This record gives sequence, structure tokens and C-alpha cells, in this order.
Amino acid sequence: MKIENVEFHYLADDVIRNIGDGSQDALLVRVIMDDGSEGWGECEAAPLVSIAAWCCPMSHLACKPLKDTVLGFEINTPEDIARLTNAVRSNSFDLLQSDHTLSGIDIALWDMLGRKAQVPVWKLLGYEKAFPKTAYASQLFGDTPQETYEKGLRCRKEGFRAAKFGWGPFGLGEAAQDIEHLRAAREGVGDEVALMIDAGTVWGSNTSRAAEVIPELLKCRAVWLEEPFTSGALKAYAALSELPGCAGLMAGGEGAHNPDMAKNLIDFGKVGFIQIDTGRIGGITSAKEVADYALQRGVTFVNHTFTTSLALSASIQPFAGMKDSCWCEFPVESAPPARKLTTQRLLPDADGMIALPDAPGLGVEINFETLERYGRKVKIEYEDNVIWEMK
Amino acid sequence: MKIENVEFHYLADDVIRNIGDGSQDALLVRVIMDDGSEGWGECEAAPLVSIAAWCCPMSHLACKPLKDTVLGFEINTPEDIARLTNAVRSNSFDLLQSDHTLSGIDIALWDMLGRKAQVPVWKLLGYEKAFPKTAYASQLFGDTPQETYEKGLRCRKEGFRAAKFGWGPFGLGEAAQDIEHLRAAREGVGDEVALMIDAGTVWGSNTSRAAEVIPELLKCRAVWLEEPFTSGALKAYAALSELPGCAGLMAGGEGAHNPDMAKNLIDFGKVGFIQIDTGRIGGITSAKEVADYALQRGVTFVNHTFTTSLALSASIQPFAGMKDSCWCEFPVESAPPARKLTTQRLLPDADGMIALPDAPGLGVEINFETLERYGRKVKIEYEDNVIWEMK
Repeated sequence: MKIENVEFHYLADDVIRNIGDGSQDALLVRVIMDDGSEGWGECEAAPLVSIAAWCCPMSHLACKPLKDTVLGFEINTPEDIARLTNAVRSNSFDLLQSDHTLSGIDIALWDMLGRKAQVPVWKLLGYEKAFPKTAYASQLFGDTPQETYEKGLRCRKEGFRAAKFGWGPFGLGEAAQDIEHLRAAREGVGDEVALMIDAGTVWGSNTSRAAEVIPELLKCRAVWLEEPFTSGALKAYAALSELPGCAGLMAGGEGAHNPDMAKNLIDFGKVGFIQIDTGRIGGITSAKEVADYALQRGVTFVNHTFTTSLALSASIQPFAGMKDSCWCEFPVESAPPARKLTTQRLLPDADGMIALPDAPGLGVEINFETLERYGRKVKIEYEDNVIWEMK
Repeated sequence: MKIENVEFHYLADDVIRNIGDGSQDALLVRVIMDDGSEGWGECEAAPLVSIAAWCCPMSHLACKPLKDTVLGFEINTPEDIARLTNAVRSNSFDLLQSDHTLSGIDIALWDMLGRKAQVPVWKLLGYEKAFPKTAYASQLFGDTPQETYEKGLRCRKEGFRAAKFGWGPFGLGEAAQDIEHLRAAREGVGDEVALMIDAGTVWGSNTSRAAEVIPELLKCRAVWLEEPFTSGALKAYAALSELPGCAGLMAGGEGAHNPDMAKNLIDFGKVGFIQIDTGRIGGITSAKEVADYALQRGVTFVNHTFTTSLALSASIQPFAGMKDSCWCEFPVESAPPARKLTTQRLLPDADGMIALPDAPGLGVEINFETLERYGRKVKIEYEDNVIWEMK
């Protein structure tokens, strides 16, 4: 089959708030093959820019729009998707945003192959079984420690086995304030719920500032400290890991937009948890490459995701069959376009576990009413020619 | 002064050819302050996508269009530009293309401060003197060894002291073919001219394929082997450097879109030459950070540039005062929009040396006729609102 058409659907909430909530918009990708087969995927962040990477004029040999490589490409097997990944990376390697656009297309192609063969993507990936994962409720810190406490309490009452707090005021002021939030988070979730902390790169590469929260972090038995530093600050990650009690405590990788960046965090940053956003790293193909690499090196693969059930399913497929990689990010505060994108949501069960559907492809179905309701119009013209239009 | 307006000018040749020539288009940036001061900069590659990163709707807290951070920002000193860099990286860190857009804005702000103070940018950077650099003629390999030979011969006749060959057929076929091109290159330029080789990431992370050309590379006394691997393949870079005679031979870094990536190539990739494109890494501020880091570690900083005299000037400023960093990339095959952008071109002298002008800012002046002749129209609409228009 050849790729005949790629549609992009830009969804956005009616109002986008200035908070760390990535579920306020989404870029859905529908891939249609020349035999009528189709599949759906999603690109992480900045929909308009990722669309531009699809349709822009060529700059030169290694800076082509994705459409030049993708349209007409022959896809019959997972190996063909890997070939497409290589071709896009070679033809667009000077086009920085291309990794985001590729991600959604790659995911849609896996979904398409799964639907066509009537098997889940995780089976196409070679897994015999998809192990249920422990969902961690992923949410922002409260504006005050009291609010953080209440959010924690809510997680416990809702039956989550794990909760992650991130962003908000954390790390922005004095360490004393961070410590109050850490205590409030632990008190809120209680003794039984696993607790993860996400610093959202707030300390850049400042290891001494990060070190100030470590004692409290260990005291409240955090499973990990996520993104204390920017994605590329490998030396800082390694340095923090060397503090007493910190070996394997660091988590990071959501910023990785290709497998090399994730591997470098493992090899040189010494992270204990590698967190991959399938919507950014290049899709399921690239995420699976990282999952295999992490497994060999005793590093725990974790999904990063913050938008729809489609993105959630795509983010779990690459490590579905890895029993010991047991954590799964689950966004609990999603905005309406993300919540309503699929006809059924992928949710934790009463035990707080998330199981991938044993259904073709990604196992989720698009709610076309949501595309209609939250779909946004985009039109791009170059030299008076319409090179992109979504009505 | 506050930043009042930022103009983007998308220049492109009438026909864009499918060759590794990055001078076929350009994205010029003009920054205008509220007191009327102005400066010019340039972003590397994919103009339309970088414009989209300027004007797109916000996705969330850390995925804002650059205009949200840049417009109205107070800039009076180089330290203010560094503050803007940090603010953009914080507000747009989920917007991958933002580093390209930031680069042009940063360069324009340095030009603006220099023009206002009537001093060259390199003086603002703290250098007392700008050392002339040895220009290396940067060009593509010929399609055949004979053509490579002739290109080499031409470089020698034109008085270049150094020549670099890259891309074209190199690395794509058998090693025997590469070896023929290497010999032809050395024969063409003769014994006296320094020779550099650019593999253009052709071997991905395949060290054994790269190793096949090493004996001939050493025999033809190449100054460096550039980008044998993709930018992030740190382990592969380090492994190749460990072959006999290869310590300090590797060069790379043009793909770095932030200082961390370049530092990682130095620390973990063990490159001997770090090649920075000011139009991609975040501008002069970020490039200078890398230049200082390289100097401390005995690594040679080299500019990467392939477009206009403006980009060339911007790329040299960060290491202008570093005497031992003596090489300077000079594109010899530029397409018309790049050649004609400035009223005067920055060219090597009879000795093959390039000296930065001792003139305010970047020391180059825009040829407005070229903007008119090669300027391309772009219009972007979101929900029926025109969010970008360049007529």
C-alpha cells in the first residue's frame, strides 16, 4: 500500500490558559492509504508549527517538508515504517520541527497496520502480552501547599496507587517552599500511594539548587525526581545522581526528539527512568528503540503523555510487554478536547491499573463530533498559492 | 529600549534545487526598537516553519509563540539579550523550532546594540581584537572524482589556503568510491592547501563504515572529518576518535540547537572541532557560550555557515578574538539571494584570510533591492484571522 493522503486536525480548547497543561490543544493525524486503509496518530505540542513542517517549501536536500518524503511511500510492514522514519530524518534533518510531525504520522501508520491485520499494535511490536501498568495520576502542584495536599488526598480517594506532582510553583522560589509542597504531597496521598515529583526543568543545570530538595525528597520516599534540569544537561543529571541515596532516582527524557537524545540521557546522564513521549520522539518506532535500549541497561522505561486517550495508548504500546516497566503516566486534569477525542476513554480500573485494549491498532476510536466541535481552521499561503488548508 | 516590532523576510531563489546547498533560501530578521534603533539577523533553514514558531497560537505555559516573549522585552545591554534567551527557552521549550527563530532575533539584537553604540559586535562580546581567520572554501563534492579534482584545482587557483568537500556522493556507496574522491580532492588542492572532509551525517551511527575511510583520510592529511554521524550519536563520535591517529580529528556540532548539545559533543563525543551555526544554536549569545566552553577544554571552535555575508559575519563574531581558533567556513557556491543580500560581501583577501569589518554591529548593510527581488509572500490564517502576512 502507498500513503495516499495525510490529514491534520488541529484541536484546541476555546480558551488556552497560561498553565503547564499540554492537553489544551492537540494535533491529530489521519493517514489514508491507496487501498482505503487508515489509521490515526497524534503529534505533541505546537500544532501550527508541525503543520508548517509538513507543507513548507523545500530549503535544500536535507531540509524538505515531510510531505515530500511521506506521500506515496510504500508501507506494508513495521519495517517499512522504520524505513520511512530513516528517510524523513535524512530528508528533513535541518528541519527541527519535523520530529513532532513525523511522530503523529508514525503512530497513525502503526494504527493502520494493526487495524488492517486486526491485531493490537503491541502484538505487531512483537509482544505476546500487554501487562497492565500502574497508573500514576499526573497533575500540577497546587498554588499553595494546602492545595497540593488536597490534590493528593483526592488521588488517594479516587483509588490511584501512585501520584505525580509537577510544575506550578515548585522550584521557582526558595527551597523551603518546595519542601513544604513535598511534605503536603506526601501527607495528601498518604503512606501507601507511590509519589513522583516533576521539577519541569526549572533548575536549568543548577545542581546545587536541585540538591537542596534532595533530603526531603528521600524522606518522602519519592519514586523519582523528574527533569530537575533541561533535557540536554547530561553532566548535571549525572552529578545529581551521584549524591548519596540518589543513584537511579533521576527521571527525564520527555524532551528527547530522537532516540539518540534518550540514549545519551541513559548512558551519560545516568537516569534511572527514561520517559518518552511517543508524540515527540518520532513515534512508536523510535520509542520502541529506546525501550529496548533501556531494558538492556536496567533503566525503567516510562511513557510521557498529557493529552488524549489516543496519545496515551500510543505511549504505552512501546513498553506494553515489559513487565518490570510498571509505571504509566495518566493525565487526570485533561481539558475537554483531549477528554472527548475518543468515543471511549482509556482509564485506570478500580485497582488503579491501566490495561491496553486487546483491539486492532491503538484500540481507540475517534469521536468525530469532537473534531467538529474543537477543530480549528488553518490556512497557509506561499506566493499566493494555498499550501495548506483545514476548514 | 523595548522591542517594538520584528519583521521576517523570507528570501528564496526562483528554483530550489534538490542539492545540499543551504544558500538557496534565507530568513532575514529585522528587529525594531521603540526608539527607532534597529538591527538585522538571520535564521538557518526552513523559513516558513520558523515564522510559524513566531506567530502560532499558544499551546500551554511552556509552548508559547516567540512573539509572546519577545515583543515589549527591554533590551539595553548584552545581559538583557541573555535574559531574553533564557525567557524564550523557558516559555517555548516544547516548541522545537523555536531555537531557529530565536537565533535570528538574537543576532539582530546584537547588531542593533552594536549599531547604537557604534562598535562592532565582537567588541561588545569583550574582545579587543578580531583576528583574521583562514577561510576554507566550503563546497560539495563533485559527482565524479574528476569533478572533485577540478573543484580542488579551482580552490587552489583562487588562492584559498584551505578547502572543504562535503555531501554529494560521499559515503553513499562503497568506501572505495569515497577513497577515490579523497585522493582527487587532495590532488586537486595540491600539497599546500589544508583539506577538510564533511560526511554530512551519512553514516548515522555506523562506526565500522566510517572507519573504512580513516586510513585514506589520514594519508591525505585531512584537518578534520566532519559529521561522520548524526549530531546526537555521542558514543559513535567518541569511538571513532579512539582509532589510531584519530584523537581530535572529529568535527561536528552544526546540528546543535542549544549550547547543551554542543557541550555534550565536546565532553562525551570527544570532538576536536566544534562547529556552531549561529543561526541555529540560538544566536550569538548561545554561540559565545559554546566558544568559551570549547576554549577552556582545548577544543577548536569553528563557525558553520552556508548562506549570506550577514550570517557569515554573525557566525564569526563569537570567536573573533580567539587567535588559535583560526579556521572560518566560507561558502563559495552561494545562490543569488544569499550572494546579493548585502551591499558588500564579506570575502577572503588575497591571502585567503577573512577579517571581520571594524564597523558597527555586524558590519554589513542590507541590499533592499534583493529583499524586493527574492522576497516571498507568506500568509498564515488561524480561525479566519490573519496571524502572519508578508506581502
